[in-house]
Amino acid sequence: MKRAKAVVLGSSAATPKPKRGLPAHYFEFEGTGVLMDVGEGTQFQLMKANIGFSKIKAVVVTHMHGDHVLGLPGLLETMSMASRKEELLLLGPPGLYELVSTAFKLTHFAPSYPIRVIEAESGHEVSLRNVKIKLFPVNHGVTAFGVRIETVHKRKVKVEELEREGLPKRFWSALQSGRDVEWNGRVFKHEDYTYESEGIKVVYSGDTAPCERLVEEAKGADLLIHEATFTEEMREEAHERGHSTAKDAALAALRAGVRMLLLTHFSGRYEDLSKHLEEARRVFPNSYLGEDLTKVLVMKE
Amino acid sequence: MKRAKAVVLGSSAATPKPKRGLPAHYFEFEGTGVLMDVGEGTQFQLMKANIGFSKIKAVVVTHMHGDHVLGLPGLLETMSMASRKEELLLLGPPGLYELVSTAFKLTHFAPSYPIRVIEAESGHEVSLRNVKIKLFPVNHGVTAFGVRIETVHKRKVKVEELEREGLPKRFWSALQSGRDVEWNGRVFKHEDYTYESEGIKVVYSGDTAPCERLVEEAKGADLLIHEATFTEEMREEAHERGHSTAKDAALAALRAGVRMLLLTHFSGRYEDLSKHLEEARRVFPNSYLGEDLTKVLVMKE
Repeated sequence: MKRAKAVVLGSSAATPKPKRGLPAHYFEFEGTGVLMDVGEGTQFQLMKANIGFSKIKAVVVTHMHGDHVLGLPGLLETMSMASRKEELLLLGPPGLYELVSTAFKLTHFAPSYPIRVIEAESGHEVSLRNVKIKLFPVNHGVTAFGVRIETVHKRKVKVEELEREGLPKRFWSALQSGRDVEWNGRVFKHEDYTYESEGIKVVYSGDTAPCERLVEEAKGADLLIHEATFTEEMREEAHERGHSTAKDAALAALRAGVRMLLLTHFSGRYEDLSKHLEEARRVFPNSYLGEDLTKVLVMKE
Repeated sequence: MKRAKAVVLGSSAATPKPKRGLPAHYFEFEGTGVLMDVGEGTQFQLMKANIGFSKIKAVVVTHMHGDHVLGLPGLLETMSMASRKEELLLLGPPGLYELVSTAFKLTHFAPSYPIRVIEAESGHEVSLRNVKIKLFPVNHGVTAFGVRIETVHKRKVKVEELEREGLPKRFWSALQSGRDVEWNGRVFKHEDYTYESEGIKVVYSGDTAPCERLVEEAKGADLLIHEATFTEEMREEAHERGHSTAKDAALAALRAGVRMLLLTHFSGRYEDLSKHLEEARRVFPNSYLGEDLTKVLVMKE
């Protein structure tokens, strides 16, 4: 059984609310943590959620709006004060490097660990340890990305076929590791007797108006974390400003056929989020509110 | 009776603790709020302390270390999203303007209100509404300031002398407003019959090793907010790193003859602060711990 977790660290849009922090979402799979967006205060939310900073191997910034990125310099400096040595991957739109390097220069700061910055223009895909991270463009006026994370696993053996062929079990792990096996005068090619084990897929929308590309990238995802800045009475304004309603998020979840939808990025105008939930569930029943510190355990055979 | 308030918004040094935010201290007198240092998360602490952002007329950054300044861009952006129109004064060391303007540029942001930036090289004094704000150099390795805030009041009339001279009371407010008065063939010069009403003085150390200049500037202050990063067992390291112990802070308070000492800026190594308090009170009995959201009301005749 594969297990990954996703945590909403901040569920507010634009400005914080007393009980809602600025955008930050965390994914973790077997020791690999990926932080998606780093609003101001993310380091406090990580502490509240009991997530060790050293778990974070990559930070993705979906777009360069202040509420999504201004917590980054402080987080990087705190990681350094905890004497981090391990490289950190920073992934986001152009401007990310300048923001971080200017903050470091002006605050007399040199990090204790290497930071690898990748500025993506229109998309990017990177393998990191046991996950693949993909940035794809969404609709938000400025350069903005959605994020797809997929866990990577060993291939699985085709048990029934191997039993039928009678290949002794001691050879199976070789096949699984990608080696061919010779037995009884026959060659068993690993690609014939193994198949790719499907990873856990989590997709995060970042900020976006309804977006075809997102639906495509979210196809078959186990979890879709989608912004729902507004509800339907603000539909027009939402789209004009590059945002979605809860219903839009649910429609994306439905069309992509995801297993579960987690709503986030709620406008400060809403105290009560029951309308968001209602609106989404009418379209996609397996919808949930991703309020601050909501944690989802994603499991898959 | 004059009344001002001071609020510790963040009392941690360098990195936050679950119950201690990054450096930020607030002073308010009759509608004029001055924020001193803006660690990451200051905007959240202001909300917790119920301080309206529009009250803040000036922000002072004592020095350009990340823990003292990285909450600034986010605060300025939130003020704008609340449609602030009133000018904000930003006062701090060189680099302040570049930090703010770079963050604005890279996060596609233009503020809704004018920001006046003053970068001080070695000190600065400015009058703002009903307060005077003075920055003076302290000892912290990089360009670093302490802050003295003094409230400004109308002059007071010398009641006994005026009664002795028999000047009718209807003329007194003219004298108080700085005008001379002619009565009964005599001229009453306002400077002879009025005196300066002493303002409330609050001094904040910023980050500093023991500092003669600070003692001088804090002479007669009603409240000294002083960093106490360490306690005496770390004395040497404290001084080397440009910091004070609780005892150092108390000695400064004693020598300056202040009314009250509030300790702040506690190193993350301390969970329990009772040693800080003990150490300070042994030297200066009217010492208090300035933990997060500690509020001090300063009153003066």
